[in-house]
Amino acid sequence: MTRARRRIAIVGGTAAGPAAAAEASRTDPDADITMFEAGPDISWGVCELPMLLSGEIERADELIVFEPDQFKDRYGVQVETGTRVESIEAETLTLDVRSEDGQVSTRRFDAVVLATGTRAVIPDGLRTDAPNVTLLRSIGDARRIREQLRDHSVHHAVVVGGGYLGIEAAEALHIQGVRVTLLQRGDRLMGRVLGDELAHVLSDRLTRAGVNIRFETATGLDVRSDGRVQAVRTAAGEKIGCQAVILGAGVAPNSELARDAGLALGVADAVSVNERLATSAHGIWACGDCITQADPVTKRSIWVPLALPAYRSGHVAGRNAARRGRGKPATMKSVVPVYGLRVFDTEVAVVGSDREGLRAAGYEPVDVYASQVNRASLLEHDRIHMSLTADRSTGRLLGGRFVGGAGAALRANALSMAVRLGATADDLYDLDTVYTPRIAPMHDVLTVAGRQMQKALGRGGGRE
Amino acid sequence: MTRARRRIAIVGGTAAGPAAAAEASRTDPDADITMFEAGPDISWGVCELPMLLSGEIERADELIVFEPDQFKDRYGVQVETGTRVESIEAETLTLDVRSEDGQVSTRRFDAVVLATGTRAVIPDGLRTDAPNVTLLRSIGDARRIREQLRDHSVHHAVVVGGGYLGIEAAEALHIQGVRVTLLQRGDRLMGRVLGDELAHVLSDRLTRAGVNIRFETATGLDVRSDGRVQAVRTAAGEKIGCQAVILGAGVAPNSELARDAGLALGVADAVSVNERLATSAHGIWACGDCITQADPVTKRSIWVPLALPAYRSGHVAGRNAARRGRGKPATMKSVVPVYGLRVFDTEVAVVGSDREGLRAAGYEPVDVYASQVNRASLLEHDRIHMSLTADRSTGRLLGGRFVGGAGAALRANALSMAVRLGATADDLYDLDTVYTPRIAPMHDVLTVAGRQMQKALGRGGGRE
Repeated sequence: MTRARRRIAIVGGTAAGPAAAAEASRTDPDADITMFEAGPDISWGVCELPMLLSGEIERADELIVFEPDQFKDRYGVQVETGTRVESIEAETLTLDVRSEDGQVSTRRFDAVVLATGTRAVIPDGLRTDAPNVTLLRSIGDARRIREQLRDHSVHHAVVVGGGYLGIEAAEALHIQGVRVTLLQRGDRLMGRVLGDELAHVLSDRLTRAGVNIRFETATGLDVRSDGRVQAVRTAAGEKIGCQAVILGAGVAPNSELARDAGLALGVADAVSVNERLATSAHGIWACGDCITQADPVTKRSIWVPLALPAYRSGHVAGRNAARRGRGKPATMKSVVPVYGLRVFDTEVAVVGSDREGLRAAGYEPVDVYASQVNRASLLEHDRIHMSLTADRSTGRLLGGRFVGGAGAALRANALSMAVRLGATADDLYDLDTVYTPRIAPMHDVLTVAGRQMQKALGRGGGRE
Repeated sequence: MTRARRRIAIVGGTAAGPAAAAEASRTDPDADITMFEAGPDISWGVCELPMLLSGEIERADELIVFEPDQFKDRYGVQVETGTRVESIEAETLTLDVRSEDGQVSTRRFDAVVLATGTRAVIPDGLRTDAPNVTLLRSIGDARRIREQLRDHSVHHAVVVGGGYLGIEAAEALHIQGVRVTLLQRGDRLMGRVLGDELAHVLSDRLTRAGVNIRFETATGLDVRSDGRVQAVRTAAGEKIGCQAVILGAGVAPNSELARDAGLALGVADAVSVNERLATSAHGIWACGDCITQADPVTKRSIWVPLALPAYRSGHVAGRNAARRGRGKPATMKSVVPVYGLRVFDTEVAVVGSDREGLRAAGYEPVDVYASQVNRASLLEHDRIHMSLTADRSTGRLLGGRFVGGAGAALRANALSMAVRLGATADDLYDLDTVYTPRIAPMHDVLTVAGRQMQKALGRGGGRE
């Protein structure tokens, strides 16, 4: 007796979705797998999008890892692009699907994997259909902005929001020869993430690289009679004239479909999953940027829209959705949040959960600041600024942030390992770092920060 | 009642010696500290020496951190350069000291710190007084070689020995426009350290950069009537014509003074010390490249001539020599060997003890090989080749080696942390690495190697 082919739906085709589909296919080569993607493209490099805008990557198709047909040929997965899953009936694993031609069909599955990613959060006053106001979330977005640049009518662009994406967009436009103003509400760039000292270093370096940063809140858009925006209005009552606007505003989990299906949501309204990435509904798994993850330090649920955990979770969800109870279930145990960025010659990396999460888990976070050259000071060098966070009573390392020249971001890997393994400030001070003049100084910013932390906590290594 | 000023002798003034002297002075500002240095310079950047030869560092004095007078002014330490400590009478802490003018005096101390560093090991047939055969161990050496290059009479140079220093010397000469042949006995470059696969990658990259590598053993020198060497003879009977020779041959602990004083020597004939860096003789401490260290993984005694442990040990020895029993003694607990190198665009890093040491400690080392791009493959990139070593039964990470493009060496820091903390292959596979296209790919060589190791050991992470 042969069992019927298992029907698996993958909802979302950007990154975690394809990972899930591919792994489901490897797990059960006989499964009947369909991947639904609302947009035109699947399996493409989201993180490289700013480099398509800057021109470092020339052609949009370079970003695409698999065309739908290639993906089908390679993994035996049906791919339906331009197709939106409008609702899920969790009880019966039935999906209402609107295809490219507007037809809605009802499709039944044995397992569903949600990989719906994020959605942009656009402040009210900035919603518009103006053709020169663009998000930077899809290949089409980057293409549209580059088309606007082609006729040289864009002399000045405003990027609203100074998060990772806003900063990368500002750099890309600058590389394209456009004068850029980056609008950030509050008084610091990535200040909540980086803290005062490093936020100042970052904005200072971006300013020197040629980006005009203004700490103001964008509240509205001035639209011309032809429908194009000609200025961004700020809370201070100013109008900043421009020929193009990029909304680098924040993102949130794209969890509406899950919520409407009655699935439990967790922190930040991300889809709540267990270690096996099962949602609260039987037969529905979730992965990627729309789910909650576990922080190994705080043991709390966190939302971390990051490529590596997204890929890994896709792998786990795809496996579990396809395994029919055979073999050991795959698990996604924990994620140490590690964000990285390089703009101009400045690298940024952030390791670990935020203060609120640390405090809620019972830690008493103590911060120290360190600054050190990135290679031997006798050679041409830059500086790396670092803040390090540890628990006051135990000295356990909880996280850290780096802003500076070449090598700043890669140093985050050692801290990521330390945080994951429960290392202390003493371990960091004792770390044997690689030293060779062209790559690192003898006293690396990592060990310097470790020493600063020992002092702050009144601890002394053996060498003190 | 005031105690007499404590008389402290520091023997050796390059790196660990000055660190010890400075810390001794901080610990007991009233101490009467004398630092003896046989050469003309103290407190200078040994690791930057190849860059003085290449011209990346222009002036020799840039390498010098402190001139003797500056050091005296800053730390209140007497500095006697050109002064050789000829013998130590351990019982009485009495030193026979030959000063620059040839006078020998007998000086008595309350504490002695040995920081005598390394000595070059020159194969018998290569010992010579020829003016165009040079070591690369002192500022004077680099100066002499650069003088030889000045009149453009050196068209071809032979570097004997393809260790770290030999490779750096070959690069420096190449940068100076000299055709270089690097002679290495055996059939691999740094093969004992890197293993076959990575040794091949390294020699291949150096060859492409323009260094002629020949796997032959230098057995002798052909000397002209004017006393200059005109060729290097090899075991195969060849004569390799050249106008200059650099002996990049190995180094050994410079422990003769200690041995003659009756001090216990340990592995590699390094001066045997305990955690407080006390030698077997009461009142004599030792530090820097002449001492044994403890490997935290094997718990065995190792000899690791490395700048960072040298500096750290100087700090500990200086403190303990000066503390007169007050306060907590400083300790030097352990060293994870971490070597780094960058030549041309190739980075090399080596983490952990050698196979013999691992085996002797009861580990069964298993090696895997991984190769991955150093940044997103859509951007201009290079590759990083890595071999990883773990214990067969426990999966504990024991070490690893990296050869490749930008970022290869800095990745060693995460492995160094992992090895120090007793992490396993699973921890490496689970590592949240920094990912941003311009700096690292999503699947870093670290996690790729971790996965390879899981497979080799028949272990599976949760995601498998």
